[in-house]
Amino acid sequence: MNFVGNHIISVGQFNRLAADRVFEVADSMQPYAMRKNITRVLQGAILSNMFFEPSTRTRVSFGSAFNLLGGEVRETTEVKASSLAKGESLYDTARVLSGYSDVIVMRHPESGSVAEFAEASRVPVINGGDGPNEHPSQALLDLYTMRTEMAASGQSIDGLKIALIGDLKFGRAVHSLCKLLCLYDSIQLNLISPPELALPDDVLDLLKAANHTINIFHDMAEGIQGVDILYVTRTQEERFPSQQEADKYKGLFRLNQAIYTENCAPNTVIMHPLPRDSRAQAQELDDDLNQNPNLAIFRQTDNGMLIRMALFALVLDVVNEVDKNAQPVTWYTARRHLPI
Amino acid sequence: MNFVGNHIISVGQFNRLAADRVFEVADSMQPYAMRKNITRVLQGAILSNMFFEPSTRTRVSFGSAFNLLGGEVRETTEVKASSLAKGESLYDTARVLSGYSDVIVMRHPESGSVAEFAEASRVPVINGGDGPNEHPSQALLDLYTMRTEMAASGQSIDGLKIALIGDLKFGRAVHSLCKLLCLYDSIQLNLISPPELALPDDVLDLLKAANHTINIFHDMAEGIQGVDILYVTRTQEERFPSQQEADKYKGLFRLNQAIYTENCAPNTVIMHPLPRDSRAQAQELDDDLNQNPNLAIFRQTDNGMLIRMALFALVLDVVNEVDKNAQPVTWYTARRHLPI
Amino acid sequence: MNFVGNHIISVGQFNRLAADRVFEVADSMQPYAMRKNITRVLQGAILSNMFFEPSTRTRVSFGSAFNLLGGEVRETTEVKASSLAKGESLYDTARVLSGYSDVIVMRHPESGSVAEFAEASRVPVINGGDGPNEHPSQALLDLYTMRTEMAASGQSIDGLKIALIGDLKFGRAVHSLCKLLCLYDSIQLNLISPPELALPDDVLDLLKAANHTINIFHDMAEGIQGVDILYVTRTQEERFPSQQEADKYKGLFRLNQAIYTENCAPNTVIMHPLPRDSRAQAQELDDDLNQNPNLAIFRQTDNGMLIRMALFALVLDVVNEVDKNAQPVTWYTARRHLPI
Repeated sequence: MNFVGNHIISVGQFNRLAADRVFEVADSMQPYAMRKNITRVLQGAILSNMFFEPSTRTRVSFGSAFNLLGGEVRETTEVKASSLAKGESLYDTARVLSGYSDVIVMRHPESGSVAEFAEASRVPVINGGDGPNEHPSQALLDLYTMRTEMAASGQSIDGLKIALIGDLKFGRAVHSLCKLLCLYDSIQLNLISPPELALPDDVLDLLKAANHTINIFHDMAEGIQGVDILYVTRTQEERFPSQQEADKYKGLFRLNQAIYTENCAPNTVIMHPLPRDSRAQAQELDDDLNQNPNLAIFRQTDNGMLIRMALFALVLDVVNEVDKNAQPVTWYTARRHLPI
Repeated sequence: MNFVGNHIISVGQFNRLAADRVFEVADSMQPYAMRKNITRVLQGAILSNMFFEPSTRTRVSFGSAFNLLGGEVRETTEVKASSLAKGESLYDTARVLSGYSDVIVMRHPESGSVAEFAEASRVPVINGGDGPNEHPSQALLDLYTMRTEMAASGQSIDGLKIALIGDLKFGRAVHSLCKLLCLYDSIQLNLISPPELALPDDVLDLLKAANHTINIFHDMAEGIQGVDILYVTRTQEERFPSQQEADKYKGLFRLNQAIYTENCAPNTVIMHPLPRDSRAQAQELDDDLNQNPNLAIFRQTDNGMLIRMALFALVLDVVNEVDKNAQPVTWYTARRHLPI
Repeated sequence: MNFVGNHIISVGQFNRLAADRVFEVADSMQPYAMRKNITRVLQGAILSNMFFEPSTRTRVSFGSAFNLLGGEVRETTEVKASSLAKGESLYDTARVLSGYSDVIVMRHPESGSVAEFAEASRVPVINGGDGPNEHPSQALLDLYTMRTEMAASGQSIDGLKIALIGDLKFGRAVHSLCKLLCLYDSIQLNLISPPELALPDDVLDLLKAANHTINIFHDMAEGIQGVDILYVTRTQEERFPSQQEADKYKGLFRLNQAIYTENCAPNTVIMHPLPRDSRAQAQELDDDLNQNPNLAIFRQTDNGMLIRMALFALVLDVVNEVDKNAQPVTWYTARRHLPI
């Protein structure tokens, strides 16, 4: 896979070499994301951050990542603020906006919309999530987090034991992650969900074709035993036919410190693509886990910055320029480095 | 007309010398807009991009143009996000915001609002569209596009033959363009619209006073013969008393490749102020024209960047500073230069 | 009070030394805010400007202040654009966003929300207004304005005579200002409001404990006599149980030039936290005061830039770096310096 000048639309574009290349570049972004140094490698470049569906985390993360490389961000949020509402096609929007920018990140509620948009774009487009379909930077940051969390114990991605917990049917983060895991060897996946929210067959088939070990559970306590990583998800309420239907599954699997202590090996990593639903009736990850040093959910979002910086640097072909003229950060940064 | 420190509110401010000066400066912005070089001439300057009415194209275009000159953009969208909703006058808003910025672009749904705002502003204000009234940067980019599209064949703006097609009553882009055309000599205008959506008399009188040739048509095929440029517009639905009323005129004039081939001379330029309505019932410009090299609609929006960069540079008096310390762009830009 | 790395949540954090330090640093920001010089001291730093309640003035002012120090701004407006709507806790939002930014400004409709958010943040948080509770930068800019307006006549904050006029019950600006005034000596406060909208007892008790002189009036003409400063406020309609209830008090106290001339000493300063309600039924400050050179309301918002630049510089510990490598502004700025 060649990154330079290309669109990042789907995890299906990645082979193992390409994924590892992203991770390697992400590693090199650490001094900038941690505010040890600044770089101005993309000074004068413009990111169009197009969010036709609400998002704080992904939108700000992409925007900040671009700023950390020295570039500027022009942002559009929600479809009603847009000429799409006046009947403009994705083709036209892409043609026009790509004339204003050097790279575009797009989130849109419809599957396939970002690929359609990218085809007409005159600059590289990165998929920031196209409805229930794909969210490749999320999958990359999830896998990168597994890689970095396990590094301390000498464990690589090959051979990992992962429990996927919750709404495995509608969670696009889970689907994309599974596809990326197919690039690696000998993964054990414990799939924990209510039967109605099981992982779709097409994703299951891919995992089987990759010779991974699949175990299916409907009971969480049983399924989380002996794994390296717990990957917990929220119920994707907005994808259900009705709120009532969604509410049936809310809070079905709740992980808290007591359950963790009783069932998990020490240092079992806890991940979640966020947002976690902290309302009383949901709480898929209880607040009492906030002091657990193995709760990796905020290291995960921090890693999102590294991954997005890496994607920009790769696509715009500046990886080898980033460190040139790097300068030390002179403002206050100490609070950031306190242990979480 | 002196640009330095002044507001750009109306095409009525421009004489021929001033319009030509904008075009000349716009030409000089090409290396920056095409990402050959970067300039930081406005580093440290702040644009307040105030959009009290939705717009993607104009808003992002002004913002990106300012970024390309090295400046920062602070943005406000929609009136409800504003203290105008708490009864604040335009006078107060202008007084306050001009203290935060170096230049302001404002779009507002009411005619005359931007002029009223500008009167109280302590920094230059550029009209980004005040309801059905004026949108001077659109008129300038339209005329600039005619100038650059015709340059290859040695034709200047003087003596042009232009067909204006569609809703000529409510289209402010058309009105402003007509006013600018009055600065030039011997234009032939074929006005093609349903009788109810004819060009208003006051605009017509200006064109006649400029000794331009006016021909009126209700049939498109007839009206587009022998012209240099087709300027197609959408029905300005939002200006009609009701959607039903607007729907009567939707899709009345549809240009497609077959009609073009049958009626137009080779190299007849196709323009549109965008957005074009690509819904089945509208399609004033059919998708089958997308491969026609004379379809200039995306060169038109690209030119919008040049015109807006020129206006900022003129108003803030940095035209002669832009090229100083220009530096080559080092990131990937090749896709942009592929033929459209 | 130590500023470096700390949150600015409440005026209660400030002692007199700290307030004076902010004012001193604000003074030093004048050349940058007035566009004589530019500084790039925060180049590479990112402000997350989180506004979960509409605001133009405060939002743009914080954003522009950060830009003037050379930093970048990532913005989020309104709660619906946020994952708070998906049940995310303030704790999680803070954990995540503080990984993307170097400092956060937050406005939120609920009292105490910003403090709760700050506790989980890994970077300094500045309160941009938490519902009816606190808005410390507004109180600081108000006091700073009193200080600078009175400096010409040799009067310091100690010993000031101030009339507070209007809705003293719900106006958080008034409450925070009163708390700051408790740090100074021998203030005389004329409280002018309808009995139902009187200053709350807890604030009154603080003023008394500071040995300030309190006079209560229900008649404006009487209350404004002999004071140095008129601090006028609008009715905080959005805090009333109903619009009808709010309308009872709208326009109850209207200051205009005739009343001013008849009752006030020459050079009595007129202030207002803005927005002022200029609708016919409100007009707490009449338009005919706009030519009165003692109307300080726009110098007040200009001062907001200085105060916010000072807070950023103090919290991020770059006060001593600001002037290093300062460069002259080369673009047009003359209109800004015309007398208001």
